[in-house]
Amino acid sequence: MSKALSHPEAEAIDLSAVLDALRDPIRRAIVLMVAEQGEKRCSSFLCCTTKTNLTYHVARLREAGVVRVRIEGPSRIVSLRRDDLEGRFPGLLDAVLAGARQDPPLARLVEDA
Amino acid sequence: MSKALSHPEAEAIDLSAVLDALRDPIRRAIVLMVAEQGEKRCSSFLCCTTKTNLTYHVARLREAGVVRVRIEGPSRIVSLRRDDLEGRFPGLLDAVLAGARQDPPLARLVEDA
Repeated sequence: MSKALSHPEAEAIDLSAVLDALRDPIRRAIVLMVAEQGEKRCSSFLCCTTKTNLTYHVARLREAGVVRVRIEGPSRIVSLRRDDLEGRFPGLLDAVLAGARQDPPLARLVEDA
Repeated sequence: MSKALSHPEAEAIDLSAVLDALRDPIRRAIVLMVAEQGEKRCSSFLCCTTKTNLTYHVARLREAGVVRVRIEGPSRIVSLRRDDLEGRFPGLLDAVLAGARQDPPLARLVEDA
């Protein structure tokens, strides 16, 4: 039996929580990767940080409603909640992603992933 | 002689710092007020919080490059750095302001100010 992880409903996604999730550059790198490359295993983000930090950062993004995480066997698969975010805060995600792409070290990290 | 407060140059405005500044609802209320009503004395925001907290919140917004603060006699006048923010992160400020307007207690606070 797989353990389901909790996610906020789309209408309960909170602006403070989303901005708090996105203010960290590691978390923005994760979001940029799933925005550009589609859903990814959690282990794909090990380029960005250590395993312990990664678990923490992905949980912060999930709890804020920015990403969805599902468990498949030993893996956690991360996808972007683009429609839910766009429905709640139109234009916010794209503005943050555009800002993240301007950041050369962060953009390089995403290209290399 | 008036003491000038430090502000980041437009091109040095950092995305992490801006999101960190805007993640707090009191700071979003301040930003929404100056966005809708133009520049205001710092004391106008006393509806939102205590004087000590207000000094802290306005400093956080200033240091992140979200607002400009100038000293006029005994007053501090706060204005929004809309063009600087729009130049650095197009669409971000408007998306956050739209989200702030959806928040009934925050929007009421701004209307009553």
